[in-house]
Amino acid sequence: MIVEMIKGASPEEVDDVAQRAKSLGLNVQLNIGTDKTVVAILGSNTGQLSTDLFAILPGVERVARIMKPYKLASREFKAEDSLVYINGIEIGGKRIVVMAGPCAVEGEEQIVEAARAVRKSGACVLRGGTFKPRTSPFSFQGLAKDGLELLARARQQFGIPVITEVVDPHDVSLVSKYADILQVGSRNMQNFALLTSIGRSKCPVVLKRGFSCTVTEWLTAADYLLAEGNNQVILCERGIRTFEDSIRFSLDISSIPVIKSVSHLPVIVDPSHATGHYSLVPAVAKAAVAAGADGLLIEVHPNPKEALVDGLQSLTPSDFARLMGELRAIAKSVDRYI
Amino acid sequence: MIVEMIKGASPEEVDDVAQRAKSLGLNVQLNIGTDKTVVAILGSNTGQLSTDLFAILPGVERVARIMKPYKLASREFKAEDSLVYINGIEIGGKRIVVMAGPCAVEGEEQIVEAARAVRKSGACVLRGGTFKPRTSPFSFQGLAKDGLELLARARQQFGIPVITEVVDPHDVSLVSKYADILQVGSRNMQNFALLTSIGRSKCPVVLKRGFSCTVTEWLTAADYLLAEGNNQVILCERGIRTFEDSIRFSLDISSIPVIKSVSHLPVIVDPSHATGHYSLVPAVAKAAVAAGADGLLIEVHPNPKEALVDGLQSLTPSDFARLMGELRAIAKSVDRYI
Amino acid sequence: MIVEMIKGASPEEVDDVAQRAKSLGLNVQLNIGTDKTVVAILGSNTGQLSTDLFAILPGVERVARIMKPYKLASREFKAEDSLVYINGIEIGGKRIVVMAGPCAVEGEEQIVEAARAVRKSGACVLRGGTFKPRTSPFSFQGLAKDGLELLARARQQFGIPVITEVVDPHDVSLVSKYADILQVGSRNMQNFALLTSIGRSKCPVVLKRGFSCTVTEWLTAADYLLAEGNNQVILCERGIRTFEDSIRFSLDISSIPVIKSVSHLPVIVDPSHATGHYSLVPAVAKAAVAAGADGLLIEVHPNPKEALVDGLQSLTPSDFARLMGELRAIAKSVDRYI
Amino acid sequence: MIVEMIKGASPEEVDDVAQRAKSLGLNVQLNIGTDKTVVAILGSNTGQLSTDLFAILPGVERVARIMKPYKLASREFKAEDSLVYINGIEIGGKRIVVMAGPCAVEGEEQIVEAARAVRKSGACVLRGGTFKPRTSPFSFQGLAKDGLELLARARQQFGIPVITEVVDPHDVSLVSKYADILQVGSRNMQNFALLTSIGRSKCPVVLKRGFSCTVTEWLTAADYLLAEGNNQVILCERGIRTFEDSIRFSLDISSIPVIKSVSHLPVIVDPSHATGHYSLVPAVAKAAVAAGADGLLIEVHPNPKEALVDGLQSLTPSDFARLMGELRAIAKSVDRYI
Repeated sequence: MIVEMIKGASPEEVDDVAQRAKSLGLNVQLNIGTDKTVVAILGSNTGQLSTDLFAILPGVERVARIMKPYKLASREFKAEDSLVYINGIEIGGKRIVVMAGPCAVEGEEQIVEAARAVRKSGACVLRGGTFKPRTSPFSFQGLAKDGLELLARARQQFGIPVITEVVDPHDVSLVSKYADILQVGSRNMQNFALLTSIGRSKCPVVLKRGFSCTVTEWLTAADYLLAEGNNQVILCERGIRTFEDSIRFSLDISSIPVIKSVSHLPVIVDPSHATGHYSLVPAVAKAAVAAGADGLLIEVHPNPKEALVDGLQSLTPSDFARLMGELRAIAKSVDRYI
Repeated sequence: MIVEMIKGASPEEVDDVAQRAKSLGLNVQLNIGTDKTVVAILGSNTGQLSTDLFAILPGVERVARIMKPYKLASREFKAEDSLVYINGIEIGGKRIVVMAGPCAVEGEEQIVEAARAVRKSGACVLRGGTFKPRTSPFSFQGLAKDGLELLARARQQFGIPVITEVVDPHDVSLVSKYADILQVGSRNMQNFALLTSIGRSKCPVVLKRGFSCTVTEWLTAADYLLAEGNNQVILCERGIRTFEDSIRFSLDISSIPVIKSVSHLPVIVDPSHATGHYSLVPAVAKAAVAAGADGLLIEVHPNPKEALVDGLQSLTPSDFARLMGELRAIAKSVDRYI
Repeated sequence: MIVEMIKGASPEEVDDVAQRAKSLGLNVQLNIGTDKTVVAILGSNTGQLSTDLFAILPGVERVARIMKPYKLASREFKAEDSLVYINGIEIGGKRIVVMAGPCAVEGEEQIVEAARAVRKSGACVLRGGTFKPRTSPFSFQGLAKDGLELLARARQQFGIPVITEVVDPHDVSLVSKYADILQVGSRNMQNFALLTSIGRSKCPVVLKRGFSCTVTEWLTAADYLLAEGNNQVILCERGIRTFEDSIRFSLDISSIPVIKSVSHLPVIVDPSHATGHYSLVPAVAKAAVAAGADGLLIEVHPNPKEALVDGLQSLTPSDFARLMGELRAIAKSVDRYI
Repeated sequence: MIVEMIKGASPEEVDDVAQRAKSLGLNVQLNIGTDKTVVAILGSNTGQLSTDLFAILPGVERVARIMKPYKLASREFKAEDSLVYINGIEIGGKRIVVMAGPCAVEGEEQIVEAARAVRKSGACVLRGGTFKPRTSPFSFQGLAKDGLELLARARQQFGIPVITEVVDPHDVSLVSKYADILQVGSRNMQNFALLTSIGRSKCPVVLKRGFSCTVTEWLTAADYLLAEGNNQVILCERGIRTFEDSIRFSLDISSIPVIKSVSHLPVIVDPSHATGHYSLVPAVAKAAVAAGADGLLIEVHPNPKEALVDGLQSLTPSDFARLMGELRAIAKSVDRYI
């Protein structure tokens, strides 16, 4: 940690900073400039200390971290790429894994038809929500446990693993009986009770980025999962909130190379929730693959016009089939495959 | 709802929109312009319908709401101001209610000293967190149930009601045994499982604004509480995430008059979490009162330098006493009192 | 325009709205719902009217546009793609046009070496700034006219057209003598005096997106150029300001398909200014091509370590050569070429 | 400047950083931690150096500034408050200076009526735009020089100084003949050609904050004015762009105490452009005074319904008179006066 003293800070103030650091078992080095003194506080776990510990002391102007606040998710902690395996499918390797299906499970016919369609076009995981976090209490809230049963049937019929969202820490054991991958939604990225519960379950998990969280906060949230011993963590970029109003969320395309640089975890992209409109999904999906994403999470509905949730961002089976063809070409051009 | 058709939309496409509206029991009126046709869809609950229902249809360019997505929190639903009563204290009336205390309960001496100090300076509710949602798993997570016991002791000793945060839907009944007011933190504003559980408890609740949520989303989240029959809802503006980096969050000062205009719920302001720095708290607290806030939630710690959490944004008891004097003058100038 | 009246608006208030519309030569249609009345105001140029004209009237709750505020840049005005020609190079067609070179012209040797390198790797336009808009008055401000002379020499020696920025409306005629394409920087996107001057010059122009402007505002700024009769307009996405702090600006990847949908103008992408770091440029450049961009504007410097401006975001000639190879593969996969 | 090396950086890489610093005449101190080496680079003008100079070197992970990028606007450069005098009115002292009038000068009757009204209610500067930066080329662009003549007449008739915007660097000498204070609009905050020209004029100037610029960038822009020897600089907070959609811009209320802490320049607030709606102006204006602003810039129009520009955010003369009464009470409560 780097503690900058204000211009004219007294030697006693500088000493107080040094003493506090030493009392925490850290090393201290003073840098006395012409205008200001800077105290460097050195030690391997300073990333996990609050900067407030020093910022609160008299004569301190500003405190900057050297070590990042996340630890287990960092490439400094683990240099080589982490791979997650789902029913023999490797995520984080050469293959780009496409997970597809409807936003919400609405009924047996719908989920079966969706599963058939996405399977046929080459998706290797089926998505479908049954516990839906909806912004309004008057909206459709999902089929809950009944939906899980339907998902399980589709999974068995087509031999395709499934991913579904869990929203309550006390539902983790239930949902993980049915799901191959748990999903933490954007609004729950910092629901720490939920993260801890999933961490303990050891079930593979897709951690969606909070739509207003930085990459650093996202990786720090991943540390909650990893700290409980769950190493099966997949990150999912799904767009951030900005001032732009032509789309729902702005997909942060540069988060992909940033994550690849600072973390060992695989990262996939959800172009459907980012853009909010089916016509924009293909361009963003293709960009994600070109930028180095390890997979995609795409909404596909047998009949988007009749979808109970998020129809506007869902592809039809035929649009999805066409997109998969285009994605295969892009994947090949970056030396990967789907 | 207003459905704009694209230029050149066919009569059949316009008719499809009309038919869908009618099938939902809504009225339809066509507006045929020189360039475009606009379909107005009229009915009292169109605010609760998804715009996607129409946006997905062929020939539709854009759909705009007329009715707001929230209902129970709106002034159209209830014209007169709602008042919340805590131990005889009225929130939302002429009195500006100051809630103060440490970010986290750290021990008996600390909470007792804090309670004594804030009580003496005129605060009428004691704050103190025991379940702490921390961004890093390596940070202090709060004293949990032990902290609730300590809060209860301070409450009894000083006869001051207490507010504390609840983070897990399954803890609501436990926490509401100890707390006079439950707090929903910013990161949980859209934790719908938690909102539903608190709604059912009927316990008074402060709903903090999600730091990246619009006023509309905030009021829609309040609808989750109100829909379960809990009318004791107090909103709390605590700053939003912006690009500005001199503070933690930018307090959205105009949200106060906006809320007063569109909602009947009382609204208080948390200047401590917004700014993140004790030196900025007084100016923002005074601005909030001048802008019409019904109360303040301020962090006060007997010894901020030794605080385990958020010391940098905590006022000392003497700084708090001085601020209370300044706030009384502002309150009087807007015809209110503290 | 759609004017929503408040609940309980009087017939006189509704009539005032209608009268004002009629006085502006527009047509009016009333939509009387159960809760609210909505007035549709119809006519072909309502996009250019201020919504305030109606929002200010008593009894009005909100006014929404149907027509967009921009006109000449819209696909409704001109359905087919616009192509811009620079020395026989077509921009907006099948070829993806790469413009590359240093941020600033620093001297003869530097610009000649840069021109040679980018030419060799397949760039078809040379970039280099001579009037530099710097955030601090104490930073290097560019070589001004001397830099233009150096650019002109490099252009002649390698037969490559050049693009350079103009910042003062009174410099347009000077700069356009030396440059094949003028560049309007992000901070000048709404410098309307500058836009008008460039519009009159009829010189091809790259209009960078203001880093906090919406796509709609960007296209409305393009209307300033088009309204003066300059049809040689190329848009350039260069990232927007968000809360994310791992990069300088967040490239808005979905702006590419959005622009393609609503406008006829070609759009290129600047991955260098967006990310601010050479290591992130390749991923974002590849994403842009996959998403449908018509070209790229990339910073290349013969010796980034010694660059006077923005060295950190500049590629070396050899990194650029490698990237061009990768981009060719992506371009081919989306049926285009470089 | 603090240069953090990556984990495992070689001694040669650390030495390269040190050598570059020394070659720039700066002092260097090494901090060798258990995990990482940190190089402190010390000297009085490191704030004006680009961090890229070091970030580009091999083995460097991140570079952080100690010195701020702005210099002349900082309180470290000048500790005591700067006062600006306009016709004997002191700005930055105990008096809160209210500048009021229409967004645009529309004609003689309008500006005279506005001047009379705002003068009567206690405003001490008249505002009125004649060169209008409009987002669309099809909007009213202002009366230009004719408007200046009208402003001059109102100024003479009522003995009130005037403030008006200048948008083209070549108009500065013209406009400063008529105006007592020049205004730099939000979209021109980083129009450095304009700033330089105004700096040279030595005319008092209100520098509005760019709606997407940080406080640091704003003060760095002020350095452009100060560096040319113009010390008559007043800052104006007018709201920043955020995701919130209930208002035009979110007024950054904490920028007032932040500016007071880091700069010696006076700061005023424009609640009209921030909120965009007359009904929100009073609450925000009162908040600004309570937070410590030195003045206000408020739009007042004799007949907002007929205003050519921004009528929706304009107060009527009677609303303005009422607000001035309320503001006087607030000013008194913070020991100031209007």
